[in-house]
Amino acid sequence: MTVVNIMVGGPEDLIPYDQLNHYPGVWLGVDLGATRLLNHGIVPVVALGDFDSSTNAQFDAVVAQVADVRTCSPIKDETDTQLALTIALQEYNATQINLFGATGGRLDQLLANLYSVLRDPYRLALPKLRLIDTQNVVTWFEPGTYQVEQLPTMQYLAFVGITGVDNLTIQDAKYNLAPFSSAMPISWSSNEFVGQPVTFSFTTGIVMVIQSHD
Amino acid sequence: MTVVNIMVGGPEDLIPYDQLNHYPGVWLGVDLGATRLLNHGIVPVVALGDFDSSTNAQFDAVVAQVADVRTCSPIKDETDTQLALTIALQEYNATQINLFGATGGRLDQLLANLYSVLRDPYRLALPKLRLIDTQNVVTWFEPGTYQVEQLPTMQYLAFVGITGVDNLTIQDAKYNLAPFSSAMPISWSSNEFVGQPVTFSFTTGIVMVIQSHD
Repeated sequence: MTVVNIMVGGPEDLIPYDQLNHYPGVWLGVDLGATRLLNHGIVPVVALGDFDSSTNAQFDAVVAQVADVRTCSPIKDETDTQLALTIALQEYNATQINLFGATGGRLDQLLANLYSVLRDPYRLALPKLRLIDTQNVVTWFEPGTYQVEQLPTMQYLAFVGITGVDNLTIQDAKYNLAPFSSAMPISWSSNEFVGQPVTFSFTTGIVMVIQSHD
Repeated sequence: MTVVNIMVGGPEDLIPYDQLNHYPGVWLGVDLGATRLLNHGIVPVVALGDFDSSTNAQFDAVVAQVADVRTCSPIKDETDTQLALTIALQEYNATQINLFGATGGRLDQLLANLYSVLRDPYRLALPKLRLIDTQNVVTWFEPGTYQVEQLPTMQYLAFVGITGVDNLTIQDAKYNLAPFSSAMPISWSSNEFVGQPVTFSFTTGIVMVIQSHD
């Protein structure tokens, strides 16, 4: 497994700093995310962004310590996070991508992050991406049948049709779901595990699975 | 205009407590949101929820101070926030609904709140709802042509196709958009005003407009 971790610039209190050293693989630092990694003793292999949220001193420190710094224009169709996904896939052949610092603060940026993997070329990252903050782990699924196991410290389980979805079925959970179809997005929140893996399936659409705790 | 304000139980640091008294209209308190209102000198007309995140002392204080307390089972198809939307619409004939405490923390609950107005009977609340936190104001739109004005203190403007969307067009903004269609959700984030109202239109789907600041 080739793990690439991406740190972006969301609010610091949602980043699980005490766990970062437990994640294998290389790091990419997006904008202020690069500074945060350096502040926590992690040197990213690439730092990228327009760095408009970094001070000059922060940017100079990034240039001094990171071998590969890529400054990109803020006027572009892809977000910095999407650019990082492309680097993870094309240059580092990631089989798993962990995204940190992508929640909290501006909701437009959170939604851009959640939607990033819905269209080409970032769609290739969809089955590989995990968004992680102090309370949530988010994964994305294309149609199929899957089993999901409870993560340590997580109490709640949610199935989110981020697009319309057909025949979403949930088994072996606290609240099961008979085949459900909807043209509209829906968040089936606050489900729970009951001591065994939960099985779910669907035939069209994209479903996010979110494990969380209060 | 009949304004109904709803306070739910999201993380406290995202609730603009210093502004709450500026909002006209009655208040509904959902679960721990009722306690928070009382702590800030606001007595809701209705308190509702399963109150499983409230202590016994908090619940007793709610019962002592709020004339209409409705305890509901956690095992139900609608969320407490959806139930509050129904009360706002049916019992208080709301023409504007402000939702506070609905962001931060668990992402499944945030998404359930963003998606609440996509289906009946809550769809009636769609053009009336504003979700407000310390950094964001979110509104929802059905197909049509609209003008949006910059809110005080807000720097960024985003158009989010929360469903597929056809012919989304943005004019008079920093970054304009020619007619754009997509079957997948998309967040056009980090746009800005340039001193005049921004005009946008679309022909199918549901679009959220988010104004925000860092």
